[in-house]
Amino acid sequence: MKSKKIVMNETEMPNRWYNLAADLPFELQPPLHPGTLQPIGPDDLSPLFPMELILQEVSRERFIPIPDEVMDILSLWRPTPLVRAEKFEKAIGTRCRIYFKNESVSPPGSHKPNTAVAQAYYNHREGIRTITTETGAGQWGSALSFACNFFGIDCKVFMVRVSYESKPYRKSMINLWGADITASPSNETESGRKILVQDPGSPGSLGIAISEAVELAAKDEKTKYSLGSVLNHVLLHQTVIGEEAIRQMRIAEDYPDVVIGCVGGGSNFAGLAFPFIREKLGGRDIKFVAAEPAACPTLTRGSFNYDFGDTARLTPLLPMFSLGHDFMPAKIHAGGLRYHGMSPLVSALVKNRMILPKAYDQETCFESALLFARSEGIIPAPESSHAIRATIDEALQADAKGQEKVILFNLSGHGHFDMSAYDAFLNSDLMSSELNENDLKRNLASLEELPTIA
Amino acid sequence: MKSKKIVMNETEMPNRWYNLAADLPFELQPPLHPGTLQPIGPDDLSPLFPMELILQEVSRERFIPIPDEVMDILSLWRPTPLVRAEKFEKAIGTRCRIYFKNESVSPPGSHKPNTAVAQAYYNHREGIRTITTETGAGQWGSALSFACNFFGIDCKVFMVRVSYESKPYRKSMINLWGADITASPSNETESGRKILVQDPGSPGSLGIAISEAVELAAKDEKTKYSLGSVLNHVLLHQTVIGEEAIRQMRIAEDYPDVVIGCVGGGSNFAGLAFPFIREKLGGRDIKFVAAEPAACPTLTRGSFNYDFGDTARLTPLLPMFSLGHDFMPAKIHAGGLRYHGMSPLVSALVKNRMILPKAYDQETCFESALLFARSEGIIPAPESSHAIRATIDEALQADAKGQEKVILFNLSGHGHFDMSAYDAFLNSDLMSSELNENDLKRNLASLEELPTIA
Repeated sequence: MKSKKIVMNETEMPNRWYNLAADLPFELQPPLHPGTLQPIGPDDLSPLFPMELILQEVSRERFIPIPDEVMDILSLWRPTPLVRAEKFEKAIGTRCRIYFKNESVSPPGSHKPNTAVAQAYYNHREGIRTITTETGAGQWGSALSFACNFFGIDCKVFMVRVSYESKPYRKSMINLWGADITASPSNETESGRKILVQDPGSPGSLGIAISEAVELAAKDEKTKYSLGSVLNHVLLHQTVIGEEAIRQMRIAEDYPDVVIGCVGGGSNFAGLAFPFIREKLGGRDIKFVAAEPAACPTLTRGSFNYDFGDTARLTPLLPMFSLGHDFMPAKIHAGGLRYHGMSPLVSALVKNRMILPKAYDQETCFESALLFARSEGIIPAPESSHAIRATIDEALQADAKGQEKVILFNLSGHGHFDMSAYDAFLNSDLMSSELNENDLKRNLASLEELPTIA
Repeated sequence: MKSKKIVMNETEMPNRWYNLAADLPFELQPPLHPGTLQPIGPDDLSPLFPMELILQEVSRERFIPIPDEVMDILSLWRPTPLVRAEKFEKAIGTRCRIYFKNESVSPPGSHKPNTAVAQAYYNHREGIRTITTETGAGQWGSALSFACNFFGIDCKVFMVRVSYESKPYRKSMINLWGADITASPSNETESGRKILVQDPGSPGSLGIAISEAVELAAKDEKTKYSLGSVLNHVLLHQTVIGEEAIRQMRIAEDYPDVVIGCVGGGSNFAGLAFPFIREKLGGRDIKFVAAEPAACPTLTRGSFNYDFGDTARLTPLLPMFSLGHDFMPAKIHAGGLRYHGMSPLVSALVKNRMILPKAYDQETCFESALLFARSEGIIPAPESSHAIRATIDEALQADAKGQEKVILFNLSGHGHFDMSAYDAFLNSDLMSSELNENDLKRNLASLEELPTIA
């Protein structure tokens, strides 16, 4: 019997992160200060992030060593398995060979702790006592709570109120690892109180929650802020996924023709793809597909422009694909993909045609997730189902051309805390995921007032 | 760095089950027919189970090969990791070395699919179209639904109504893998209708759900019944856990002095312990601890006597420890441990002083689970928390004696679908788990009317 699962021991784990910025065949534009519109430097970011993370954000070093203290915690669940999905191949009826990297095996259930642990560590090393953050559906909040727990750092999570009320079990998980969690908007910050005065019943938004978390961090020297995607250092920490996958594909004596991930802010996609992009730049022929929701089509219908990371215009302007910082996507179940912007690195690669973006509607993604859950057993997170849908697409296209492709996708997380979404799907009761074309048009037009990318 | 996780490839998986019945240094008493009180033979069981499982139930073969078709599905998640719990050791402050076998990594989240897959396979091979079963909290129902899905067998789950209503997400999981699920008591069976006439608002019980499942199976030749614990063949299928652990301890160059599991019907405990009991019979010095809830203290306060497996007195009489088939344990969160009886094999080993039973109250188990979740990251099922509590106990006892013991316990499942229980614990709002002493006294007395064990 040939192995289905390529499992490595943690002693074989890659011990450095890969920094794609060192190898890019094009220039990356700098973030701009929201007030001056001038490029920002490390000092501008220091009220929010510890210096080591700021240096990683702008680093051009090709490899950055993973500290032993971080390795020690990652090795609780890493290396994650690389799995040949034979039963899924049969269910599709394809001749392609499909592999997936199973990031759902981490204790919080997704790839998020890969960066949460690193961020908590660097904050700890610089004497930080409290980290603030926002969370939508709760994946990121639970990962950061998990990570802070190991370093004795207080973690303060602002959770979008509508999710706080409708997803009680992610909240329980955040509590269990010791973090303090507050429904946002809250009375604990100026930003929150301002919103509550205008609208006492506000359901909250990621933009508001970011403002609350940033406000608290900026006020106290021993408090910093943490983000779960988008930024370069966050993507850097996720490259352990792809570094492991390269070694595991070698053990499997196979190599991917296509590498696929879902994209919200870009971190799970980048984590798997960037090390393979290095190999592509070295001469390998690999196709990269970034799968996003049709309800929030940042890469397929957004503008490549400078835009704010949050609704309240507090963050630096980032050079990225964006739907406009006021864009309000439908309440799809893949909450982790409901973001108006996109990692600048992923955006630049899409702009330079090194990554093919594709958008899929919610219904077809759930159908694919069900096929996967009934063949491979694992229940995917609604976010990950977009990567699964893209995988089926690529396989069927290859079959139609008589090609036997090797496809590798990232299973970014499990759906144990999303069962109500599966219920809705099985009962044909999914909420509408229709794109508000007028809102999109208005938002894209508003980007024209912001600086364009040189 | 020495490995924390002993991961094996599935090509190294043990390919046979270990049958402890072949090696027992004492006689096992036979089950008795509920009507005649005479020992039952294979034919008496054939309306309910396929013949191959009946033969396994009475087999004295030492090893039974695992069919390729079963190995193929088990290998989706097996071998499961054996983990050295260094951070947990530090959290306890013990000098003992603690290992756990992580059965929570299966898609349904527990050890249950180890037997569910085997049972579905043998039913499929004998042309069975439908399998009926009962489920309390839903762990077993989801495992059987998962297993039947692979063999195209219809699965019909009767779920205790109170759990059906309060644990919606286990129900969703059962639906997702394609099983049909009905709240019990239901209108679909005589037994269910009879209860509903007497009590239209009945919350149901495991005993009633068993009656409904058995009734449907007995009525139709192509329908059989399946049980998730207690019986010999179920425990047999779980021995893959211990067989893997023996190989993995060898890789770790260590050996357990103490082997621990929680017990409800006995299957996860037996799965880990039985292969080590073989080694004990071969001369190894190992202590075995079976951890049960103080609210349902079958082994520590029950009688070793013949008793029925269900409340409705439909099943054969089994020679086992029992609290009496009418005993109603408090509604503790470890629903999988709320069973009045115990596997006859485990019972006989306890009676022969080869296993030490211990009872723990719910509060202390949740405290231990929290310590584990905050050190090793994984959120344990409330059932598994009993094994964790016993592990802490053994470690502290060894420390007090100046001994450095090696302790191995079975992490039978994760708590992703039990977060409301953790909420209750964190908010000091656990339901009372007090033992009803009068109910216990009355039930133990009622056992005196049943045949005693020779």
